[in-house]
Order: sequence, then C-alpha cells, then structure tokens
Amino acid sequence: MIDIDQYLDEKRKKVNRALKKFRAQSGPAAVIDAMNYSLEAGGKRLRPILTLAVADTLGSEDDSIIDVACALELVHTYSLIHDDLPAMDDSDLRRGKPTCHKVYGEAIAVLAGDALLTLAFEVLGSYGRQEGYAGKAIKIIAELSGASGVRGMIGGQVLDLEAEGKELTRAEVEDISAKKTGALLRAAVICGAIAADASLEEQKILSAYASNIGTAFQITDDLLDLESSAEELGKPVGADRERFKPTYPAVIGPEEARREAEIFYQQSVASLRNLNQPAELLQELARKLVFRKK
Amino acid sequence: MIDIDQYLDEKRKKVNRALKKFRAQSGPAAVIDAMNYSLEAGGKRLRPILTLAVADTLGSEDDSIIDVACALELVHTYSLIHDDLPAMDDSDLRRGKPTCHKVYGEAIAVLAGDALLTLAFEVLGSYGRQEGYAGKAIKIIAELSGASGVRGMIGGQVLDLEAEGKELTRAEVEDISAKKTGALLRAAVICGAIAADASLEEQKILSAYASNIGTAFQITDDLLDLESSAEELGKPVGADRERFKPTYPAVIGPEEARREAEIFYQQSVASLRNLNQPAELLQELARKLVFRKK
Repeated sequence: MIDIDQYLDEKRKKVNRALKKFRAQSGPAAVIDAMNYSLEAGGKRLRPILTLAVADTLGSEDDSIIDVACALELVHTYSLIHDDLPAMDDSDLRRGKPTCHKVYGEAIAVLAGDALLTLAFEVLGSYGRQEGYAGKAIKIIAELSGASGVRGMIGGQVLDLEAEGKELTRAEVEDISAKKTGALLRAAVICGAIAADASLEEQKILSAYASNIGTAFQITDDLLDLESSAEELGKPVGADRERFKPTYPAVIGPEEARREAEIFYQQSVASLRNLNQPAELLQELARKLVFRKK
Repeated sequence: MIDIDQYLDEKRKKVNRALKKFRAQSGPAAVIDAMNYSLEAGGKRLRPILTLAVADTLGSEDDSIIDVACALELVHTYSLIHDDLPAMDDSDLRRGKPTCHKVYGEAIAVLAGDALLTLAFEVLGSYGRQEGYAGKAIKIIAELSGASGVRGMIGGQVLDLEAEGKELTRAEVEDISAKKTGALLRAAVICGAIAADASLEEQKILSAYASNIGTAFQITDDLLDLESSAEELGKPVGADRERFKPTYPAVIGPEEARREAEIFYQQSVASLRNLNQPAELLQELARKLVFRKK
C-alpha cells in the first residue's frame, strides 16, 4: 500500500531542490528575483510530480527525468504569471501571496514569464545533450511546445478571456478546460512516459489516464472557486463568478459537476488497468488530484 | 560578384513563404490573427537571412534549414511584440504599422508573443524529428534558448529598461547591446552553422563574425534613431533620447559611433578570412547590415 501523502511530500521536496539549481542563474537581479519569487511561491508541483510518478510506475531509474519534470513546472509558473497580469485576469493574489506584477511591476512580470518559458526549453536542451538522449528530448520538446501553444494552453487562455460574460454550452466549457488545463497535465504525463522510454501502447494508455484526470481536475478547480474561502485556497475565490466565466458548475450545476468529477476519476483509474505495471501510485495520485480540498 | 540586393530579396521571399506555412495554424482566431499581423508586418528578415547565408556559405543544400531560419524570426517577432507593450517601451508604431497591442489589445498581444516563442520551439521540435536530425536540433534549441533568455535577449531588455534616465559607461552600453541585440544575431549565425554541419572551428570563426556585426548593427540602430525621420524608419524616431536611454552616440558621440561601426564591420569581415570557404556573401551581408539606411 502506497502512502501517497508521503510520496507527494518527498517528490515536492525533490522538485524544489532541483528548481533551486535552475534558479541560480546569472542575469539582471530584477528579473531573476521575480522568476524565483514565483517559482518559490509554494506551488503544489502537481505537474512535475505527475511526470515523476509516471516514470516511477514504468520502473525508470533515470535521475535526469527530474529535469523534464522541472521544465513542466517552469512552463506552468510562466503561465500563471502572465494569466495574472492586469491586462489578463488581473489577479492580486496567487498561492497566498501577492502576484508577481504586484511585487515587481508589470514590465518585469512579463519578462519573468518570458524567461521561465525560455528556460524550460533551455533545460530540455541541456537534458537532450546527454549522450543518447537527443531523440527523446526532441519528442518531449515537440510534446511540451504543442501542449503549451495555440492548440493547447495559450489557445485555452484566449477562449477563456473571450468567454467572459457569455453563455457557453457544455461542449465549449469542456473545450476550454481541455486546452487551458488539460493539455499541460497531459503533457506532464506523456513527457514522463517518453523520458522513461515507454512504448507507444503505454503512451496511449497513459494519455487516456491524463485526459480524464485533466477534466476531473478542472471540475474540482471550478467547484473550489465556488465553495472555498480565500484563506483555504490562497487566491481570491468567487473570481470565476465575478468575471462571469462559464465553468462546469455554472453550466451543469454543482451537484452534477461533483458527480461528473467522480466519473472522470473512475475512467482515469479504469484506463490504468490496461498497463502491464501495477499502477497504484497513479491511481492514488488521481484520487488526490480530483478530491483535493485546495 | 554577388548581387547582395537580389540575394536579400530572394531570401526574404523564401522566408515569407515558409512563415506562411506556420501561420496556417488552427487555434482561436483572435490570437492567430495577432500572430500573423506581427509576422506579416514587413520585417527585413535579417536574422533568418543570416541563418540561410551561413548555410549557403558552408555549401549546405539541406532544404529544412529554412525551418531553423523561421524559428529565429518567430523569436524576434515575439520579442518586438512584448517590447512594444505599454508596460515596456510603450510604442504605438512598428515597421510602419500600429503595434500589435494597438490593434488587438494588450491581453492578446501578450498571448500572441507567448505563442510565437512557443511556436519557435515547436518548429525546431518538428525539424528535429526528421531522421538523423535530433542531435543537431538539440544543439540549436540549446543555442537559441540560451541566447533568448536572461543571459541574452531578455536580460538585455531588463538592463535597457533599468538604464532609462541613467548615465551609463561605455562598457555598460556595450553589455546591454550585446545581450539585447547581439545574442540573437549571433544565434542566427551559429544555428545556421550547426544546421549546416559546421565544424567547431568554423563555428568559432562565425561566432567572431557575428559578435562584431552585432555591435556594429546596434550602433547603426542607435544612429538611425537619432538621425532618421519616422517615415524612413517606420517607427517613432528620437525614442531613445525621449526615454533618456543611453546609446552609443549618447555615450561616445555620433561621429565616434560612426567610426566604431566601421571598425566593427572591418573586424567582422577580417574574421571571415579564416574560413576555408569563400565568404563574399557574408561579407556583403555585413556591409548591408551595418551601412543600412533604415
């Protein structure tokens, strides 16, 4: 039986240690400080932990997978900084602290985000320069850039901005969520699989696992925004409603949304049964992601 | 004898045709339109042309080098969009047209820049997935991300923002210019060399060539900002002085600046003599870059 809380705690510390290495960059203090501020702001590190958990499940013992995991967190952190900007979601609070632009100003926040995105690919570039790693590093770069671009995360953010104040259908809410949140979660899983030399069959199974938890994760996010206190969540709550953003609970109601999160969770777990390895770790991780309280 | 104007014209058209391929992406119209607007705004395509000219000089006949060249232009265009933002240089005019955020708003301009940067690595990822290309694609990704990050272009932009209204030494102006402009020009040259399978010795020679034209190019840029009309330049002139930005002419005087541009040009040409190939093309290109009128 896996102690998932202990696993999460260990891996979070491992990711934080590894990020420290990349944070010790040379460059102008203003932007380095802003990058480090946002990286250190106490994120849950769910994406890099997904990457590591997939690699652990597939039995990989390659230490350099931590670099791939960090690249995912760098992209995630950049996206939060830019999403919070006054021109975008205009958020003052993130992970319980003032947002990057509140502390460092808008110009530096834009540049810190740019720099974190660039750094993600620099990290993968140097991962790929290890003897014999170029082939899989290129696949990981293709996967991550595809998931982060206009067909994925950035596209989702655009649709999300456009959706403010509109009545969307359920299919439209699903599409936004699959792009804005799902694409990067799926990339975290797939990049871990590629780094651990998974077969195409294994990648396909893990992709189904990832898509299902992506949707369940987003529904939970929407429900938490609706029902938690700002203190519990570390960011302003009710923000979706205030900005008239269509969410799962808004479109199908909170009760139905909760039921669906459960169904997507069950589907994600079901897809793991096709894997040849015991996948209790990924199953427990899905449970934590979907039934989290913040 | 090379007709450099004809060469520039041919390669510009080639780059524009190739960029069209990447512009035909699927994704939300708002951000796709903004990306295309800035990509089509009539840039001189100097960076991708440098990449192609290096490959031509080294005798490469690999058609896929155009993808590498386009990645350079994608990164350059993203940096222009973000530099022009109200929180940064706050420019209304670029390449003779309203800047991206003037047409599409700030949120979409931030996201279009993010998307172009992401697309650059997606393009290089798919370049690297060609059989036998992964090794050099990884080197190119390492080079480009390093040149674009905090030790390069982004670092230079931060220093440039911080320099407003300050008296800088000549060494400080040189440092800003080497990072803000020089790093990406050098990457254009080095990425072309790697794509054309240059030896390390050739890369070293071309790196010296690139550093020297980088500095000369920036001095010319500063002089043009000081002495041209907005109509000639397609962007507001005197902007450096208005924002009290330290430039070469401000620090060493316009006459001395002009003399130094000439010296850096001579040095860039001199370094080409160590190359085994005839390098008239790169020599002529340096002349055009340094002694341009806009």
